[in-house]
Amino acid sequence: MLDTASASWEDVSAAISKGLIAVLPVGAVEQHGAHLPLLTDTVLASGVARRIAEGCDGLLLPAIAYGDAWTAEDWAGTLSLSPDTIRATITDIGRGLQRMGVKGLITVNGHFGNREPINLAARALSEAGFPVLHLDYPRLEALAAELMESEPAGPGFYHADEVETSMMLALAPETVRMERAAPEYPEFPELFGAEPMKLSAFNRSGVFGDPRPATAQKGEELIGGIAAESLRLIGLWTKKHGI
Amino acid sequence: MLDTASASWEDVSAAISKGLIAVLPVGAVEQHGAHLPLLTDTVLASGVARRIAEGCDGLLLPAIAYGDAWTAEDWAGTLSLSPDTIRATITDIGRGLQRMGVKGLITVNGHFGNREPINLAARALSEAGFPVLHLDYPRLEALAAELMESEPAGPGFYHADEVETSMMLALAPETVRMERAAPEYPEFPELFGAEPMKLSAFNRSGVFGDPRPATAQKGEELIGGIAAESLRLIGLWTKKHGI
Amino acid sequence: MLDTASASWEDVSAAISKGLIAVLPVGAVEQHGAHLPLLTDTVLASGVARRIAEGCDGLLLPAIAYGDAWTAEDWAGTLSLSPDTIRATITDIGRGLQRMGVKGLITVNGHFGNREPINLAARALSEAGFPVLHLDYPRLEALAAELMESEPAGPGFYHADEVETSMMLALAPETVRMERAAPEYPEFPELFGAEPMKLSAFNRSGVFGDPRPATAQKGEELIGGIAAESLRLIGLWTKKHGI
Amino acid sequence: MLDTASASWEDVSAAISKGLIAVLPVGAVEQHGAHLPLLTDTVLASGVARRIAEGCDGLLLPAIAYGDAWTAEDWAGTLSLSPDTIRATITDIGRGLQRMGVKGLITVNGHFGNREPINLAARALSEAGFPVLHLDYPRLEALAAELMESEPAGPGFYHADEVETSMMLALAPETVRMERAAPEYPEFPELFGAEPMKLSAFNRSGVFGDPRPATAQKGEELIGGIAAESLRLIGLWTKKHGI
Amino acid sequence: MLDTASASWEDVSAAISKGLIAVLPVGAVEQHGAHLPLLTDTVLASGVARRIAEGCDGLLLPAIAYGDAWTAEDWAGTLSLSPDTIRATITDIGRGLQRMGVKGLITVNGHFGNREPINLAARALSEAGFPVLHLDYPRLEALAAELMESEPAGPGFYHADEVETSMMLALAPETVRMERAAPEYPEFPELFGAEPMKLSAFNRSGVFGDPRPATAQKGEELIGGIAAESLRLIGLWTKKHGI
Amino acid sequence: MLDTASASWEDVSAAISKGLIAVLPVGAVEQHGAHLPLLTDTVLASGVARRIAEGCDGLLLPAIAYGDAWTAEDWAGTLSLSPDTIRATITDIGRGLQRMGVKGLITVNGHFGNREPINLAARALSEAGFPVLHLDYPRLEALAAELMESEPAGPGFYHADEVETSMMLALAPETVRMERAAPEYPEFPELFGAEPMKLSAFNRSGVFGDPRPATAQKGEELIGGIAAESLRLIGLWTKKHGI
Repeated sequence: MLDTASASWEDVSAAISKGLIAVLPVGAVEQHGAHLPLLTDTVLASGVARRIAEGCDGLLLPAIAYGDAWTAEDWAGTLSLSPDTIRATITDIGRGLQRMGVKGLITVNGHFGNREPINLAARALSEAGFPVLHLDYPRLEALAAELMESEPAGPGFYHADEVETSMMLALAPETVRMERAAPEYPEFPELFGAEPMKLSAFNRSGVFGDPRPATAQKGEELIGGIAAESLRLIGLWTKKHGI
Repeated sequence: MLDTASASWEDVSAAISKGLIAVLPVGAVEQHGAHLPLLTDTVLASGVARRIAEGCDGLLLPAIAYGDAWTAEDWAGTLSLSPDTIRATITDIGRGLQRMGVKGLITVNGHFGNREPINLAARALSEAGFPVLHLDYPRLEALAAELMESEPAGPGFYHADEVETSMMLALAPETVRMERAAPEYPEFPELFGAEPMKLSAFNRSGVFGDPRPATAQKGEELIGGIAAESLRLIGLWTKKHGI
Repeated sequence: MLDTASASWEDVSAAISKGLIAVLPVGAVEQHGAHLPLLTDTVLASGVARRIAEGCDGLLLPAIAYGDAWTAEDWAGTLSLSPDTIRATITDIGRGLQRMGVKGLITVNGHFGNREPINLAARALSEAGFPVLHLDYPRLEALAAELMESEPAGPGFYHADEVETSMMLALAPETVRMERAAPEYPEFPELFGAEPMKLSAFNRSGVFGDPRPATAQKGEELIGGIAAESLRLIGLWTKKHGI
Repeated sequence: MLDTASASWEDVSAAISKGLIAVLPVGAVEQHGAHLPLLTDTVLASGVARRIAEGCDGLLLPAIAYGDAWTAEDWAGTLSLSPDTIRATITDIGRGLQRMGVKGLITVNGHFGNREPINLAARALSEAGFPVLHLDYPRLEALAAELMESEPAGPGFYHADEVETSMMLALAPETVRMERAAPEYPEFPELFGAEPMKLSAFNRSGVFGDPRPATAQKGEELIGGIAAESLRLIGLWTKKHGI
Repeated sequence: MLDTASASWEDVSAAISKGLIAVLPVGAVEQHGAHLPLLTDTVLASGVARRIAEGCDGLLLPAIAYGDAWTAEDWAGTLSLSPDTIRATITDIGRGLQRMGVKGLITVNGHFGNREPINLAARALSEAGFPVLHLDYPRLEALAAELMESEPAGPGFYHADEVETSMMLALAPETVRMERAAPEYPEFPELFGAEPMKLSAFNRSGVFGDPRPATAQKGEELIGGIAAESLRLIGLWTKKHGI
Repeated sequence: MLDTASASWEDVSAAISKGLIAVLPVGAVEQHGAHLPLLTDTVLASGVARRIAEGCDGLLLPAIAYGDAWTAEDWAGTLSLSPDTIRATITDIGRGLQRMGVKGLITVNGHFGNREPINLAARALSEAGFPVLHLDYPRLEALAAELMESEPAGPGFYHADEVETSMMLALAPETVRMERAAPEYPEFPELFGAEPMKLSAFNRSGVFGDPRPATAQKGEELIGGIAAESLRLIGLWTKKHGI
C-alpha cells in the first residue's frame, strides 16, 4: 500500500508502472451527537479506506473531508459542500488519476448525502474510460444486524449510534466521550423522504439510536467485515475491467 | 481551541455563542521530491493552522487536502482540483460558517497555486458580509532568509527544499527520508511566468533548492515565526471587524 | 381540478386567489421492452398525476416528458436529459409557480433516474420558501406485493413488468402489445449499484420480470392505491405548511 | 411514422437501421386569452409536428411542453423555462439522437420566445456533426394573409387570435371556448422591442387580434399549408445532408 | 457628454449626482469584404454611439469590440465571443453602472449576431431594476431605402454594402479601400434561417450587395438619421422610467 | 503589421498562410485620479501592444477594454468584468485564432487585476495546443527605477503616478490634465493583500505616488523599453514553439 501522507512521487511512479488503483475516502463535517466529533464520517471513511488500500495494495488518497450534510445544518458545526462541488472534486481527482496512468478509482463513502454526487462523478469518469467503484460500506446492514445489541433508528440508518460509535472506538477512541452517549429514537415523520426536511425537525440530540452498547471490539468487527466485502467486490471489479 | 476531529456540535454551539472564528488549512497533493511525501503541503498547512487555531482559540477545520498543482502534473502522484472547484469549496464552507454564526474565516494556505482561487472565494464571501483573512505563511521570506543555510531556488520559491523539509521534520518526521534528499538548483527559463509552463520543463527531481541542511529545529522556528506573525495579523483583523 | 390543456389564465387566476397547488408529472423516454412504448414512464406519471390533481383539486401541469435514462441508453429510442437539465427544468417551473402565487408543488415521478435531480430542485425551492412534495409512487411496493401474481425482478424494481404493464393497460391500452410480452428475469451482477453500469450489461429484452399476467384491472388498482396514499400524504403536507 | 407514445425500442431500432429522422415539438405554457388553454402552443406544435412526422416517416418525440414565455409572465398560469434550460434540453435530446444513430433532428417550434435557444442548440449540435432543421411554422405569414378574415395585431404576430384559435379548433376543439372569444388590438408602444417589456404593459385580455372569425376549417388549412411547406424544406434538407 | 477615454472619476462622479445614463457600443471583429476592415461593426457602433451620447449628454463607454460572428467564421480574421460571454460581459457592465448610481444603459449594437445576448442581458438587468434600452440602428431600413442607390442583398441585410461602406466613409475613410469594392448578390438558399448555416456556403467575397455607390455624404445622412431616431426613442425611454 | 481596424479578411488570410501571431491588449475602465481618464489602462495596453505588433509583424487585435477592477469600484466610473467573464473572453478569442490558423497569441495586459484570468485562459488554450504568451509590461520595474524621479507608492505598484502619467503623455496627451495632477502616498494597511480590501479604504484621490514629474519623453522611453523586452521574449517564445 502507498499512502500520499508518506509516499513520494517516485514511489507512485514505480507502482503505476506495475498497475495501481487509488482509494479515496469521502466523509463529512457533520454533527454526531454529544459524544462523537464532527469529523466522525471522515475519520470512519478514512479508516475503512486504509484497510481497503492495504488489502488491495492501492494508493490511499487523502479524504475529501467535507460532504453534503444539508439535513444536519441546523446543528452547529455542520458544514456542507454543495452536491455540485462534491461532484466536481471527485471528477477532478479522477481525471488526474487517469492522466497519470492509475488504473481505476475506488471511493469509500462514509456519508449518505454524498452518494449521488459520487455516482454522477463516477458516471462521467466511467464514460471517459476510467473505471470507478463506489463503495458505501458494503454489507454493513447485515453486519450491524448480526453484531449490534441495539436496534437502528431506521432501516439502514446508522448515525451516532452503536454502529458508528463502535467504529469510532476502534479507530479514534480518544475522540469518543462515552459518558455523554445517550440514546434517542426519534419518530420519523411520514413526510420524511417525500419533501426536503432537516433532521432537526424531529431529533434533538443528533443521535439516532442507542450508542451506549458500543465497543471497540464491535467496531473492529464491523470494519473488518466491511473491508472484507469491499475487497471481494474489488476483486470482481478488477477482474471485470482487466486491471 | 476546538478541533472538528474531537469537538462535538455542542462544543461548537457553546463557542459560537461566545464568538468564534474558524481556521481552514488548504494544501495540495503534489510531488515534493524523493524525500518528502505527496501530502507535504497539506501536512504543513494543517500543522501551521493548528498552531494558529491554538493561538486564537479558533475552530480548526479539516484541510482541503487537494490544491491546484497543475505545474507539477508531470510528476506521478500529483493531483489537482481545478481553480473553480477550489473556489467553490471554500465558498461553500464559508457560507456554512456564516450561516451558523461563526464570526470569520482564516485560510492557511500551503500551496502557491491555491492563492488566486482562495482570494476569489474570499472576495465573494466578504461581499456577502463574511470576513475572510487569507494567510500564505506570512513573514516566511524573512524567516527563511534568517534561518536557512541554503539559498532558495528562486525568490520566495520554497519547494521540497530546506524550508519545507525542515517544517516536515518538525511536523511529520516519520514521513521524511533524508537519505534521499538531494539538491537541485534548476535554471528558470526566461519565459517562466510569461506562459503556461510545467515545472518538469526545467527540473528533474522535483526538488527546488537544497533540502540537506534541514532540521526539525529550524522547522519549528519557521512554524513558530509564521504562527506568531499570523496571530499578529489576526489581532489586527479581528479588531478591524469587531470580532 | 384545472388542467393546463384546457384551463385559461383566468381560470388559474381565480383558483390562485382561493389557494392552489400544482401537480407536475416527470417521466422518461426509455425503452420498456417490446410490448410497451418508449413513453411509458411519462404516460404513467401523467395518469397518476391526473388522478392526484383531481383528488386535491390542483393544477395539472404538462409532463416533463424526458428523464435521466442513462442506464438504458444502449436500447434504441431511449433519450436522456442530464441530471442538471432536469434539476434546472423543475427549478424554473417551481420559481414560476411561486411567483404567480401558487402555494406549493407536487412532483409525481415515474422514473427512478429522476429522483435525485427532483430532490435537489425541491431542496433549492424549499430553501427559497416554496414547499415541494416529491412523490415516487408511494406505497407501490406494498401494493405490488399484494396485487401482482409475478415476482419483481428485484426488490422495488418494476420495469416493463406486470406492474408497469398493468398500469399501461389501465391508462393507454391501445399502446400495449401483449402479444409481444415476454418475461426476462436477469441476474443482477454483484457490482450492480457499485459502479456505473448500463442495464444492457445483463438484460437483453428490456423487460425486468414477467409482464404476462398484467391486466387493466390490476393497473387500475395500483393507480388507485398510489393515488390514495399520495392524497393522504398531501393532506399531511398541506396541513404542515398551512396551505 | 413512429411515435414514442406507441413505438417500442425494437421499432425504433429497426427504423434506425433504415435511416430515421426525429421530429421534436417545442411549445409553451402561456396565457392565450380567456378562450384558449394555457397549453395552446404545445398542442399546436405537437399537432403540426405529428403531421410533419407522418409526412416524412419520422420519429415523433414528445413535446418540450414549456418554453420561454417571460413576456407573458404577468398573466396567471404562464410558466417559463430559462433560455439556458431550453437550450440544454434540446442539446441533450439531440446528443441522444446522434448517439443512437438517428440521422437528424427537426424542431417544430410553436412559440416565439423559443427561437433563439433552439437556434443555439442547433448550432452546437450542428458543429458536432448532427444536422438540425429548426422550423417556425414556415409560410405561416403568407397562409394567414390568404386565409384569415381578421387582421393580425402586428406583422407576423399571431397570439390567441384567428390564426391560433383556428388551429386549436382543428386540433383540440374541446378545449376552445368560443363564447369567451373577444378581440383586442393593443397599441404597441414605440419602445416595444427596444427594451425588455412584458406584454401586460399594453394588453389586458391576452388576446392579440380577433379570434372570433376562427374556424376549424381555416385551422386545418393553416396546418396543412405549414406542414406542406415544412415537408418541402425537409426534402431540401435531407438531400443536402445526404440523409 | 463624457467619454471614458477622457473623463476622470471626478467628472463621472459629478455627472452621476445630476443624473447620468451610459451608452455602450457593441461591435464585432468580422470579415467585411476586401474593401472594409475587420473592425467595421465596432467602428460603426462606436461612431453612432458617440453621436447618441453627445445628443443625450451620456457617458460614452468603450466598445465591446468582439461579437458573435459565428456565421462568418470561415473567412479569416473573424473572431467570435460565445453568446454566453457577450451576455455575461454586458450583465457585468450593467451591474457596475447600477452600483455606481448611473440611471440606465443604452446599448448601440452594430452586429446582428449580438442581438439576442444583448436582449437577455437587458432582461436580467431590467429584472434587477436597472433600465436598459437596446438599440439596433433604429429606422435604418427606412433610411437605407430612401438614401441608397443599390438594392440590399436581402431585406434588412446590410453587410459590406453601400450602407456600411457609406457609414465607414463617413467615420473612418482612411480604412476604406474603394478600389477593392465589388458587388456580390448571393442567392440565399431556401434553408437559410432554418438551419445553422455559415454565410460562406453561398457567398465568396464577403460582400452582400453593392458597395460601389457608397459615399461619405450618404454615410453621414444614415448616421444622422439613426442618431436622431435613437434620441427620440431615448426621450420616450427616459420619460417612461423617470430618468 | 496588420491591424483589425484597417486590415480586411484577405489581408489576414494572406498573412496566415505565411505564419501569423496575434497581439491582444487587455485593459480596464478604472479610476486613475483626477488627471487621467478612466480608460488609461486600455489606452496604455493598446499603445504598447501596437508597438509590439509592429515589432513582430503581428495581427493587432482590438482591446478587451474592461478588466477586473474590483479594488477600485468605490470610485465612480470604474467598471469591472468578473474574472470568469475575462477568462471566457480570452478563451473564446484564442479558440477563434487557433481555428483560423494563427500560430499563437500574445496578451499585453495593462491592469493588475487581469493577470490571473489571463493566466487561466492561457493555460486552457495551451492545453488545447495553442501557445499563449502573457506579458505584463516586462522589465517595467527596472525601467521605472531607472527613469522615474519619484518613488512608487509601493514596490511594483504604478497607478496614476509618474509611470502611467508619462506613458499617457506619450500616447494620448490630449487626455491628460497635468494641472490636476497631485501626489498621494497612502499608507498601505498591514492587512492589505491578506483580505479582500478596496483601495478606497486608504486612498482618497485615486493616485498612488506622484504624477507631477511625468513627461512624454519618459513615457516614450518606458514604452520603448517594455516593447524591446517584450520582443526579446517573443523571440524566445516563437523559437521555442517553432512559430
